[in-house]
Amino acid sequence: MRAAYIEQTGPASNIKVGELPDPTLTANQVLVRVKVAALNPVDTYIRAGHVPFELPMPFVVGCDLAGVVEAVGDDVTKFEPGDRVWGSNQGLLGRQGTFAELAAVDEQWLYPTPEGVTDEAAAATALVGITAHLGLVEEARIQEGETVLVSGGSGGVGSTVVQMAKAHGNRVVATTSNQAKVEYCQRLGADLVINYRTENVAERVREELPDGVNVWWETARTPNFEPAFASLTLGGRMVIMAGRDARPEFPVGPFYSNCNKLLGFVMFLASAKAQANAADDINRWLTDGVLKTRVDRIATLEDTAELHALQESSTIDAEDKVTGKLLVRM
Amino acid sequence: MRAAYIEQTGPASNIKVGELPDPTLTANQVLVRVKVAALNPVDTYIRAGHVPFELPMPFVVGCDLAGVVEAVGDDVTKFEPGDRVWGSNQGLLGRQGTFAELAAVDEQWLYPTPEGVTDEAAAATALVGITAHLGLVEEARIQEGETVLVSGGSGGVGSTVVQMAKAHGNRVVATTSNQAKVEYCQRLGADLVINYRTENVAERVREELPDGVNVWWETARTPNFEPAFASLTLGGRMVIMAGRDARPEFPVGPFYSNCNKLLGFVMFLASAKAQANAADDINRWLTDGVLKTRVDRIATLEDTAELHALQESSTIDAEDKVTGKLLVRM
Repeated sequence: MRAAYIEQTGPASNIKVGELPDPTLTANQVLVRVKVAALNPVDTYIRAGHVPFELPMPFVVGCDLAGVVEAVGDDVTKFEPGDRVWGSNQGLLGRQGTFAELAAVDEQWLYPTPEGVTDEAAAATALVGITAHLGLVEEARIQEGETVLVSGGSGGVGSTVVQMAKAHGNRVVATTSNQAKVEYCQRLGADLVINYRTENVAERVREELPDGVNVWWETARTPNFEPAFASLTLGGRMVIMAGRDARPEFPVGPFYSNCNKLLGFVMFLASAKAQANAADDINRWLTDGVLKTRVDRIATLEDTAELHALQESSTIDAEDKVTGKLLVRM
Repeated sequence: MRAAYIEQTGPASNIKVGELPDPTLTANQVLVRVKVAALNPVDTYIRAGHVPFELPMPFVVGCDLAGVVEAVGDDVTKFEPGDRVWGSNQGLLGRQGTFAELAAVDEQWLYPTPEGVTDEAAAATALVGITAHLGLVEEARIQEGETVLVSGGSGGVGSTVVQMAKAHGNRVVATTSNQAKVEYCQRLGADLVINYRTENVAERVREELPDGVNVWWETARTPNFEPAFASLTLGGRMVIMAGRDARPEFPVGPFYSNCNKLLGFVMFLASAKAQANAADDINRWLTDGVLKTRVDRIATLEDTAELHALQESSTIDAEDKVTGKLLVRM
């Protein structure tokens, strides 16, 4: 099969595209003919060697995929050849990735792609969708009537959290950094959008929501605790799932005296059951059209190294370089 | 009645001792003839004006008390005159305090003092005991078989958490700062005691408990997140309930990538139900002798200002000045 892979961790230019042996199946695995693979920032961290996993070499990059079942292992019960499936959580914890014509995936990490949902939509939503769901449901245990603030509401995870919290029936505040993104967050359904470059977020929140917000979802790589704690209700929760190298100051007094909780998590350590629960809702919301993931471009497998470089260049200082998911169609 | 009170917030010398009118009862209140009142660090913050409460003036200082019911309001059902009671959560949120011959206390904040338990023991355990219980049970939701590390295991709250986690059937690690305190923590039942001045806590924890600790209870006024996050298990929880002015660096990567949770709380914002639940266990453990609160000295009401000053001088640099609760016997 053709695959995008590395032989050692390092820069994006380490990614080669070429022939690798087709994967063999264990009893619990499904052989997926990949139609679309989607890139996430964590793909670049893994490729660079910043995440302390043992990588099987040559290592196929990528976490997310959507495709068609080609074959199934002896113990597989949920799928059969010809089924359309999508999944995430590959290329992690010793598993091979998804940027290849074929992928052998444990049955527990695959979900049916509903009729009417494209492979592009399913692959683009996989990791960000499961992440958003885990954070809202498993971590923050969001309740009806609560308000969620999404700091960075136009980003990959952020835009998904905005839509998902709305689909869940919550009031949503989004913060973002320019007028185009403000309008995008409004189109996503946010009830209140704050441009954090021109407005004081905590002041605006207190003006509009005197009791504060119940959940602050931080997507910035350096979480800014000050406005978050100033905006949370008594007993409010802050979710963080990014910022590997960040070491911001932590204002202890406002945090504990307001009975706040800080909830850290990474999607790939959540149970298969929690992730499948997320996938059920995602499938429903993709079908109903209430969850849409913005796609920046659809490239080919040969472009994988270039996509990694592009993703890496999309940092705080050049955050508009990538305005949606980077996909590869096989 | 004689009382220790202030007419305006400020230094310990603002505390006067003299006659104030006896309190009048509302329908839900119990008039308690105070036998013993106990001092807590928060008493000094409130007196100094550092906690943003409106204080009724003249304001009687103090949160904790043990005594005997003198009279009850019309709607009181749990107590009658002559009952021995203890309680905490006074002198807060607009309520008058406990350093007086009489205190009018809402029925919901009072608990029966078991036979065989002295007023000194009940008053000394009140706030620290409820705090320890809330943190372990309501916040950390501690489970059987888990390990709790108490950072500052010989202090007021710390020594209570050590004993309570043992009473709850957990394995306990305590850290402290000198040999006398190491021995005290051992006497309290800690399974492992680490002198943090002479040993690297995180290294020692990983040596003795390769999986780490499930709960890190921080009592230091400046929480040190680094060793805590290095010591927690996957999904481990850190409890903080002190450090009003602290702004330590927060290592975001180790926290979220290990799915850790940071739980802040203050005892006085917990529900009456949760506090009563704590009091039930405390009464049982005081009766069984598995929970003992160390008393530094028993003074008189006239000494209240001096006790406040002593409590305030017992900071990080002079942490041995007070080695137990400061009590007043009426």
